[in-house]
Amino acid sequence: MRLAEMHLNDFIQTLSSDAPAPGGGSAAALIGAMGAGLSAMVACLTQGRKKYAEYADFAAVVEKEAKALQFKFLDVMDRDTEAFNLVSAAFALPRETDEQKQARSAAIQAGLKACTSTPLECMELCDEAIALCFDFLESGFNASSASDLGVAFLSLKAAMQSAWLNVLINLASLKDLAFAEAYRARGEALMERAIPLADAGYEQILGMLKD
Amino acid sequence: MRLAEMHLNDFIQTLSSDAPAPGGGSAAALIGAMGAGLSAMVACLTQGRKKYAEYADFAAVVEKEAKALQFKFLDVMDRDTEAFNLVSAAFALPRETDEQKQARSAAIQAGLKACTSTPLECMELCDEAIALCFDFLESGFNASSASDLGVAFLSLKAAMQSAWLNVLINLASLKDLAFAEAYRARGEALMERAIPLADAGYEQILGMLKD
Repeated sequence: MRLAEMHLNDFIQTLSSDAPAPGGGSAAALIGAMGAGLSAMVACLTQGRKKYAEYADFAAVVEKEAKALQFKFLDVMDRDTEAFNLVSAAFALPRETDEQKQARSAAIQAGLKACTSTPLECMELCDEAIALCFDFLESGFNASSASDLGVAFLSLKAAMQSAWLNVLINLASLKDLAFAEAYRARGEALMERAIPLADAGYEQILGMLKD
Repeated sequence: MRLAEMHLNDFIQTLSSDAPAPGGGSAAALIGAMGAGLSAMVACLTQGRKKYAEYADFAAVVEKEAKALQFKFLDVMDRDTEAFNLVSAAFALPRETDEQKQARSAAIQAGLKACTSTPLECMELCDEAIALCFDFLESGFNASSASDLGVAFLSLKAAMQSAWLNVLINLASLKDLAFAEAYRARGEALMERAIPLADAGYEQILGMLKD
């Protein structure tokens, strides 16, 4: 069953069980989906309001893009758990003959690459979503939903940092060092670009609400 | 229907719709539930392993407490949406006579107090969960789940900051200034205690994974 088809209660119970997947990687993607979803909600609540008429056109763009991102996050959530299950299955392969050992090791490495690339995809989605939220913040939105847009920034930042931890933990076991270095560099670049933007968005909203 | 009984897909779609609830407050509580759930998972994966035998007793405590917190977060998730719906219903009350105006205003203020106290409860749960995760980090855990414990810290921090934004946005509309000031002080104290602990936990795990 796809995770997105589970009841929330069951998902949270499976997350907290001794099954290692779904774990932090799928949780990161779900938190990202919530961040994108909240920005879509604020975009919906900005349209069709006289007071915010001048922001409506861009809000429509935000709604559409945020909903597309939300869909992609949910897809990554499932693929992250699938990738983890690949590695677990690979570890369970027989290792009696040299051929078996080689096949097992290759299967583990292929699984670990999948476990590295899905959280990196999650980071790319967070990067896009954070940039979208920031443009939306600058262009103007329904101020009575300011806290919701703030939660979007916070969720997307947490999702990105969480996905990064999942990239890092897998990099250490990869034998393909060129692949590992390329992913490390991509992850670092994404973090450097998106985290300061998410922080700035959150601080701006915190400032609006504290005054 | 309780939110926790929804399918994940439907929950995320409702979140992103033009219905203002569930919004950032319920999202904060769900992210908190995920953080507590992940720490329970790491606690499960620390028990029954020879290599981590010395950590097993405290891991059993963490599992039990984290699962109790997770349950409370899911309850707050529902109550946050209910509180919001109370305020919406109050705004829709008639306001033709003076009596009606007074009754409507009182109902709005009562609803806003509920909308302030549920996210503050969420902050209290985050504070407890962050302290629990930090004790677990210090006592020792299954290192192959380090990223999951890191995601727990990140989720709980995001949930706490998100809940705080929800406290702040409602404080501004409260007429009971003593109530407002008391909640502001409680929220600030919780932030000051828990956020640096969550940051320290995340940094420690990031350090483990980067080396």
